[in-house]
Amino acid sequence: MDEEVADPSHPRYQSLLMRKRVSEAGLKGMLADSAMIAHGRGEAFDYLLGEQTIPSAMDATREVAARLVNANRPVLSLNGNAIALAGSEFLTIASQLGCPIEINIFYRTPQRMGALIAHLKLLNLNLGLDVEILGGVPDARIPGLEGPRAACQQEGILEADAILVPLEDGDRCEALVAMGKDVLVIDLNPLSRSARKGTVAVVDEVSRVAKNLIQLIPQKPQVTDWKSSDGLQAALDHIIETMSNEFDTKN
Amino acid sequence: MDEEVADPSHPRYQSLLMRKRVSEAGLKGMLADSAMIAHGRGEAFDYLLGEQTIPSAMDATREVAARLVNANRPVLSLNGNAIALAGSEFLTIASQLGCPIEINIFYRTPQRMGALIAHLKLLNLNLGLDVEILGGVPDARIPGLEGPRAACQQEGILEADAILVPLEDGDRCEALVAMGKDVLVIDLNPLSRSARKGTVAVVDEVSRVAKNLIQLIPQKPQVTDWKSSDGLQAALDHIIETMSNEFDTKN
Repeated sequence: MDEEVADPSHPRYQSLLMRKRVSEAGLKGMLADSAMIAHGRGEAFDYLLGEQTIPSAMDATREVAARLVNANRPVLSLNGNAIALAGSEFLTIASQLGCPIEINIFYRTPQRMGALIAHLKLLNLNLGLDVEILGGVPDARIPGLEGPRAACQQEGILEADAILVPLEDGDRCEALVAMGKDVLVIDLNPLSRSARKGTVAVVDEVSRVAKNLIQLIPQKPQVTDWKSSDGLQAALDHIIETMSNEFDTKN
Repeated sequence: MDEEVADPSHPRYQSLLMRKRVSEAGLKGMLADSAMIAHGRGEAFDYLLGEQTIPSAMDATREVAARLVNANRPVLSLNGNAIALAGSEFLTIASQLGCPIEINIFYRTPQRMGALIAHLKLLNLNLGLDVEILGGVPDARIPGLEGPRAACQQEGILEADAILVPLEDGDRCEALVAMGKDVLVIDLNPLSRSARKGTVAVVDEVSRVAKNLIQLIPQKPQVTDWKSSDGLQAALDHIIETMSNEFDTKN
């Protein structure tokens, strides 16, 4: 997995492109030091999934679309990596839903928040959209969470009934679930606390999920009686399938 | 997996300590940008292994110790991450074996090589050792490899009969195998090309392997008729075991 970004015919082109986006966002001051390591963890899980949207992930994405469409006050909560990987796509989704994006990062500094807000505002302009970007001036706190990562805005995360959280921290995911919200997780690790605790968990790469949501939201799918653990076990089973009898140990 | 480095009683203390070592090495100019992403990939696989040395990995480590002890010209080929994670331990191993360390990095720049050589020389001094550090003045090339990553030293990698390669690139691993050497791989991804192609592959975290080698080398274990694929499948089977029926999908 050491190749440079090659031409689009390269079998790992998409993965290398995403790596490049994270590197570039790092250079722009949009990310904490740990963001590159977090991206690498994601790469490993995506590699095990075959860098594709598996059927159970598409089902979960449809459920996420349904819950966002049917929510009274949906919000997209984005961290640095999510913005780096699929900022334009999330702006499109927010525009489809008529909802705000709230930037909510783990290692909050004024510089990093400024860089992320500026990046989204520039994308907004380039796309001809007018999506509201929250998070810059927090006026509320997520109950039960310590420190700066609890900071949020009342008209955004605090009062939302459905919240999309790509790449969410486990503690914050649990705190949001405890507030009674529909917490819609995107996480490549099916064993993570966020994946386990979310109302719906999509085990898939963020930019693929965002592209799929853009297709699914206009279809206005219906909310179902979702059982998240089925999708998580399906993802594990897919990984297990690729690992089983990979090596001929008979000879 | 977003915690800060906590006290040694933290269940993920070792993993967080290794992450800190990589971050600090990055700040010292010892690593390429992609090093943090590579470390994250390793973290994900180690997480799936339970952040422990599984029995098949210990067997493979014993075989690596045997082949290093019995080689005529062993060499330890270290890249930036290996030096960041276990530089002191590898110096101890080289001293036990009476062999050189050769720094051999993928993204070679004079600055990075200088920072790595300086780091190892300082550790050498601090440990009271006198291990020869090669790689700074390459005078040979690994046949069949393009670009600066093929650069090596004749008295080191080129003429070695057994070479320890923690975290090796797949192409270079194959090129070293094609030279007829015993290529002793340390790689957390049992599906990687290096793990598949190496003469012996230890699926374990670099610093744990280094500590185990320090214990095993003085025992002078015997070389066996090693079949590497058995160890790789055992690692996959261990991961599969942790993933199977993780979620109760009956209810």
